Amino acid sequence: MKTKESKIPEATIKRLSTYINCLERLQVEKHPVISSEMLGEYCQVSPAQIRKDLSYFGEFGVRGVGYDTKKLEAEIKEILGLNYNWPTTVVGVGKLGLALLNFTLFSQHGFSITAAFDNEPGKIGTELAGGIIIQPTSAIEDTVRDRGILIGVITTPADAAQKVADQLVAGGIQGLLNFAPTKVKVPEEITLRNVSITSELDNLAYLMTQKKKTRRR
Amino acid sequence: MKTKESKIPEATIKRLSTYINCLERLQVEKHPVISSEMLGEYCQVSPAQIRKDLSYFGEFGVRGVGYDTKKLEAEIKEILGLNYNWPTTVVGVGKLGLALLNFTLFSQHGFSITAAFDNEPGKIGTELAGGIIIQPTSAIEDTVRDRGILIGVITTPADAAQKVADQLVAGGIQGLLNFAPTKVKVPEEITLRNVSITSELDNLAYLMTQKKKTRRR
Repeated sequence: MKTKESKIPEATIKRLSTYINCLERLQVEKHPVISSEMLGEYCQVSPAQIRKDLSYFGEFGVRGVGYDTKKLEAEIKEILGLNYNWPTTVVGVGKLGLALLNFTLFSQHGFSITAAFDNEPGKIGTELAGGIIIQPTSAIEDTVRDRGILIGVITTPADAAQKVADQLVAGGIQGLLNFAPTKVKVPEEITLRNVSITSELDNLAYLMTQKKKTRRR
Repeated sequence: MKTKESKIPEATIKRLSTYINCLERLQVEKHPVISSEMLGEYCQVSPAQIRKDLSYFGEFGVRGVGYDTKKLEAEIKEILGLNYNWPTTVVGVGKLGLALLNFTLFSQHGFSITAAFDNEPGKIGTELAGGIIIQPTSAIEDTVRDRGILIGVITTPADAAQKVADQLVAGGIQGLLNFAPTKVKVPEEITLRNVSITSELDNLAYLMTQKKKTRRR
């Protein structure tokens, strides 16, 4: 697949991810072919935006007919690199870690959880759904290397996050998704995304406070 | 507190949220006063960026001395509207919902969970930590109104999200944080933030795929 330019807006990538989720629902609801209007309705995105987002990557669908739901999903997954199977590990099996380990959308998007780590003695050795056994964090580096794990999801408390990131990097991880409420430092060649749930809530509170002030004026 | 301009960059708001988390850790580690260099080191943000972020909202700290850790935390919380207590509800008590309900950072940031809803008969009536009893989703509208709940966190499957959003809005919710893997439509006056965990992972996969391609060239 040829891309028109190498610099695709992050918002476009985010929407492509939304389109996948919508296309999956549309297949479950037995829509083999859809128009960009209908996809737009499902995804809460304008049809023009959908066409623009897809145009970065080539030609999709048939004019006057629409998109083949299943084919478009596969094509978007190819664009995002999701047809590849990404061996993934979750470090920190607290409540959030456990929620992510059981997140069925992960596997639908090509992320296969192949290891889980925690440093709580009571958790180590516990078997999770899917047969994964919780290992001690001291085993991170070797396990990541031996199993060729490429993506690490960090769901530890803040004070453990940097050490865990270092161990993952030492094992050869290539991408990190950090949910710990702190930033971590990694070498430049590692792809890092920070997800802060409290920062989303804080932002919500800030926007609501601003609206309240505006209304008062 | 006077703000220099009403349009503060979203990235600044996000970092303010990070500063709170860092300032909390610094207090636990017994640092009553810190320099912007030290705060920068803790938050992985440059000292200049910290000073710039804070300058939107006035003067903080003492030149040559630094910031009073506790005071700065309180000041940033005031900026973000977190000194206010935000009555919050979580709808959808699956694994992610449960993780969020038990998220201690919520209360530290001023969000107090006062109700939880699910539509699974086996869950309704169950008492959660903190004494919250899971109610049926049919009770959303009345409960939100009666308890003056202002923020709704949606952690339902995609196909239930819009109905739940409508019920929350009908009850008088003012802000929504949507974790369901679909967009929801709400009236303009409602503040809405969508958090898509799969989209973060998809983005990570996309960035990693792009890096791989670049290396190959």
